[in-house]
Amino acid sequence: MNYHYEYPRAALTVDCVVFGLDEEDLKVLLIQRDLEPFEGCWALPGGFVRLEETLEEAARRELSEETGIENVYLEQLYTIGDVDRDPRERVVTVAYYALVNLSDHRVHAATDARNAAWFAIEDVPSLAFDHPKILKMAHERLRSKVRYQPIGFELLPAKFTLRQIQHLYEVILDRQLDKRNFRKKILSMGILVELDEVETDVAHRAARLYKFDRRKYRRLTKQGFHFEI
Amino acid sequence: MNYHYEYPRAALTVDCVVFGLDEEDLKVLLIQRDLEPFEGCWALPGGFVRLEETLEEAARRELSEETGIENVYLEQLYTIGDVDRDPRERVVTVAYYALVNLSDHRVHAATDARNAAWFAIEDVPSLAFDHPKILKMAHERLRSKVRYQPIGFELLPAKFTLRQIQHLYEVILDRQLDKRNFRKKILSMGILVELDEVETDVAHRAARLYKFDRRKYRRLTKQGFHFEI
Repeated sequence: MNYHYEYPRAALTVDCVVFGLDEEDLKVLLIQRDLEPFEGCWALPGGFVRLEETLEEAARRELSEETGIENVYLEQLYTIGDVDRDPRERVVTVAYYALVNLSDHRVHAATDARNAAWFAIEDVPSLAFDHPKILKMAHERLRSKVRYQPIGFELLPAKFTLRQIQHLYEVILDRQLDKRNFRKKILSMGILVELDEVETDVAHRAARLYKFDRRKYRRLTKQGFHFEI
Repeated sequence: MNYHYEYPRAALTVDCVVFGLDEEDLKVLLIQRDLEPFEGCWALPGGFVRLEETLEEAARRELSEETGIENVYLEQLYTIGDVDRDPRERVVTVAYYALVNLSDHRVHAATDARNAAWFAIEDVPSLAFDHPKILKMAHERLRSKVRYQPIGFELLPAKFTLRQIQHLYEVILDRQLDKRNFRKKILSMGILVELDEVETDVAHRAARLYKFDRRKYRRLTKQGFHFEI
């Protein structure tokens, strides 16, 4: 089948930067390409947008097909249209990004990916196309976002300790934070509710548990703030 | 001439939301369409992306062709790919936005626009396609952006009064701000330098002039802050 147009058209793709958090560090989800160009090379999951699906639907479909991952909260990052970014022809890509709890999302490769795997951010292999640039943009967005939007609701268990939420920020910002200072700031945001419970089954001294105040969390997500850390 | 592809392709466009500020209010730049669909209807300036130009180049070209406006600082806003947003066929659009000083940018219509004009935000006519939604997104982005990024460098004269910068924020936020409170906050940002000069040629009492500290302004633009107003 062939499709005819009066003017030449760019191909349109989506690419997904899925960050995964675990107890150790920040990871990113990559696939190994099974097709030319860059065959065998690692790349961000993604592919061509179909006429009957929205951009976000395309991103979700590609993510599911190539890695088996579903039900993530995707946000649009940026659309990249450099003229020569694909050796085949003009391809414009709409990049999405997500932050997920790694333990909830086991991956498996499918369709046009040989392999899918999580890589630590500081250990990412050489990537196809301009994917290093897209990954860098997503990482910067994530780092700047934690300064004016609350995070953690989707990533922490329903009840968590202050140590756990500090770890979350440390992993994203990739540096140690001062414990006293961090606690003062996170508590002053007013989104945490102190519970009358402590951790159980821990070897160290059991720490106090907290939960998010959903209403305040949502309000702060809309309003924004500045978290000077 | 005809172009053939193995799979059907969406058409790709750019649309520009250019906000203009003057002494009175916030305005938006619109063009009147000269072609179907929505012939005669007002719309955001924009058009099809050519294969040999980047997305931003396309936005600048369309803006120049349709309104005569050049040299604005464009930022990418969002890419909208709803399946039925254009009655002709599948069209994905990359939206850009800009904030300019209205007195620097006289408009004139050209090419496929009948007419180009500035409209006060509260007085925008009915718009073509999903342009009301794009305009709303851009307006929200602008309003939220003033809370975590400094503005004014491109919009105010080199030397300005505190009344002028307050007016800028009032126009964007569309509400009166408390003078004392605003001054305290804007001065505490540390980006203003008090000059040893006052206004000249004014009927009222001459006010103190200020300028931006370029270095601090740039640093704050990168870092962000939270301006609680």
